[in-house]
Amino acid sequence: MFKISFYLPTEIIFRVGAVDELEERAKKLGKKALIVTGRSSTKKTGLLQRVVDLLKKAGVESFVFDKIVPNPISDHVDEAAEIVRKEKIDFIIGLGGGSPIDSAKAISITAPNEGKFWDYVPVGGGKIPEKSIPVVAIPTTHGTGTEADPFAVITNPQTKEKVGIGYRNTFPVLSLVDPEVMKTLPKDQTAYTSMDAFYHAIEAFLNVNANPYSDVLALDAMKRIVTYLPVAYENGEDMEARTNLAWASTEAGITETLTGVIANHALEHGLSGFYPEITHGLGLCITGPYLFEYIFDHAYERLAIVGREVFGVYETDDRKAGRLAIKKLRDFQEMFGLNKRLSELGVKKEDIPKMAETGYRILNGVVVVTPGNLTAKDMEEIFNRCY
Amino acid sequence: MFKISFYLPTEIIFRVGAVDELEERAKKLGKKALIVTGRSSTKKTGLLQRVVDLLKKAGVESFVFDKIVPNPISDHVDEAAEIVRKEKIDFIIGLGGGSPIDSAKAISITAPNEGKFWDYVPVGGGKIPEKSIPVVAIPTTHGTGTEADPFAVITNPQTKEKVGIGYRNTFPVLSLVDPEVMKTLPKDQTAYTSMDAFYHAIEAFLNVNANPYSDVLALDAMKRIVTYLPVAYENGEDMEARTNLAWASTEAGITETLTGVIANHALEHGLSGFYPEITHGLGLCITGPYLFEYIFDHAYERLAIVGREVFGVYETDDRKAGRLAIKKLRDFQEMFGLNKRLSELGVKKEDIPKMAETGYRILNGVVVVTPGNLTAKDMEEIFNRCY
Ligand SMILES: [Fe+2]
Ligand SMILES: [Fe+2]
Repeated sequence: MFKISFYLPTEIIFRVGAVDELEERAKKLGKKALIVTGRSSTKKTGLLQRVVDLLKKAGVESFVFDKIVPNPISDHVDEAAEIVRKEKIDFIIGLGGGSPIDSAKAISITAPNEGKFWDYVPVGGGKIPEKSIPVVAIPTTHGTGTEADPFAVITNPQTKEKVGIGYRNTFPVLSLVDPEVMKTLPKDQTAYTSMDAFYHAIEAFLNVNANPYSDVLALDAMKRIVTYLPVAYENGEDMEARTNLAWASTEAGITETLTGVIANHALEHGLSGFYPEITHGLGLCITGPYLFEYIFDHAYERLAIVGREVFGVYETDDRKAGRLAIKKLRDFQEMFGLNKRLSELGVKKEDIPKMAETGYRILNGVVVVTPGNLTAKDMEEIFNRCY
Repeated sequence: MFKISFYLPTEIIFRVGAVDELEERAKKLGKKALIVTGRSSTKKTGLLQRVVDLLKKAGVESFVFDKIVPNPISDHVDEAAEIVRKEKIDFIIGLGGGSPIDSAKAISITAPNEGKFWDYVPVGGGKIPEKSIPVVAIPTTHGTGTEADPFAVITNPQTKEKVGIGYRNTFPVLSLVDPEVMKTLPKDQTAYTSMDAFYHAIEAFLNVNANPYSDVLALDAMKRIVTYLPVAYENGEDMEARTNLAWASTEAGITETLTGVIANHALEHGLSGFYPEITHGLGLCITGPYLFEYIFDHAYERLAIVGREVFGVYETDDRKAGRLAIKKLRDFQEMFGLNKRLSELGVKKEDIPKMAETGYRILNGVVVVTPGNLTAKDMEEIFNRCY
């Protein structure tokens, strides 16, 4: 019989214009805020200035930390945590894609405790962060789902370890999900981030701990993405498409909290830990179909459901419908040029064993909930098939 | 474009055996607990003793308040709040059906503040409760959804007002939903409570604020109930059926938090405020189909979806499919003898205007989110059609 364990204390306000809620909410969170963001896009679009202005109207002094890079690094987390300590910051705003929001979460548990971020990572110091500072998430992409989960993905540039951490106190206290601020997302980012959300959903659906709550959300998220990604890809300003993709991302984030991803995310972390220039969403699209083929004997019944419900596969035989689901997924990815080979992207063949071993080790928690009991050797073989 | 506002800070542990989690969790909640329960069933089944024993093992001293009646009354809330104040209770356990859990929530905001419960009711004193005491919900029925929402339904026996309150601090901190403890629920209660959950779901689905998050949960809950209520009704020990009904109830509770019920609950509160012997779930079944007919022109497209997805109606025309949904709902209710007339149940015709006016006034918040702009006169007419 199924089991469900649910804890998501984040308040989520999802609507066009949700960013404006910040003024009222900020008043209750304190007097000093650190805005954590990337190097350029929130400046170009004016969103950073808008957030600063909203905070000013709320009587909140703001500090800006704008060094966050894609595949954010622990050095920046430590640097920002120092600012929080020195300036006695009351709350942190993660503004942008997954990288600034995940960094905000990491800063929120580093600053009020002792030492550095890596001390609080299981493969690092392994300490449990007792204290945390409230985080407000304002996502500008529709992919990571980090607005609805406790996870932060941070890379240690020295060891190339890309880890995911998540504690009871790393949920945002508030997430303002505003599809309006996502309409400037470029075509390629629109596809990458949507596919990240798609993989959160399909991986939760294939997870050995899948349950009815995450199942309905996962299927709904996949259907929205398959329907609306092609629309937003053609016209980024289509607000119906953006709203549906934004909700699919948050919904898939809830499935991460409820159930979580499987080995495809471990493969991707192994890959982009060594090749940080390969975007997360693209990495997932490369390894995903090969993983599903590899575990097919243990996953075909659920893949058949995805085939029928998400891709309209009309086939009663589960194995055939499962195969067709993988084919349909590849066809869908092809529309956005996402079926790349690792060799095309400059990955060196000799790095594969290390990539497999690293992914297996640092994201072991998601490997063990994958149907089929994968080993590091299996992951190496999957990488070889993607090469 | 749709909007979603989500805040559900309750930790929900749903599984066969979830009650046993209490021992570990209680340790973190304090040293003294008040168990709020009804007069007999949790004693007969041994569940009350089991909870006392688990608390003892956790080093928690327990007090038992066992006077709660169906359609719980504010006098009992005030009486229990006095015990909490006097004994300096740290947390409250609501054990049983909706009545003890709702009472526990009401006690939790009365005890740590001044005065009586009715001071904190909008149609009463209208005060906002600043403080609250943690509540743990352990439901023994699969209906109210109170384990996943902030609401408490309490009747003032003097004024016959049956109100629903809900604040940010009336969510349980922890809900242990254990289908195992529901298997002793008698046949009639199995049907009544399941239909309560069904109406939470269908009313959220028809609510003018319906949104994609509550929609998927509402449809899923209705499907589970239509599939498994007949199974549990025949064999109460069928754990697959109980588990599905228990999850449907929690799921429908989440739709209450997300979106909420509509005028059918206002009708029922008007009815059972005057006739407290009429069980909540039965009252909803009596007025529900007549309400849906009354608002049909504003609700048929959504009723058509319910017809097709929940009842397997095979009809492309939305108006016809909507009509068939209502017919199918009546046919379903008939299996459990739930299509009663108000006159059969001893309701006096002359009470109808007061019932309508009271329901309209005290649950106005759910009337205004009903499609079709209902007035108290409309509600009177609906009662007349049910007579
Ligand atoms: Fe991801
Ligand atoms: Fe109800």
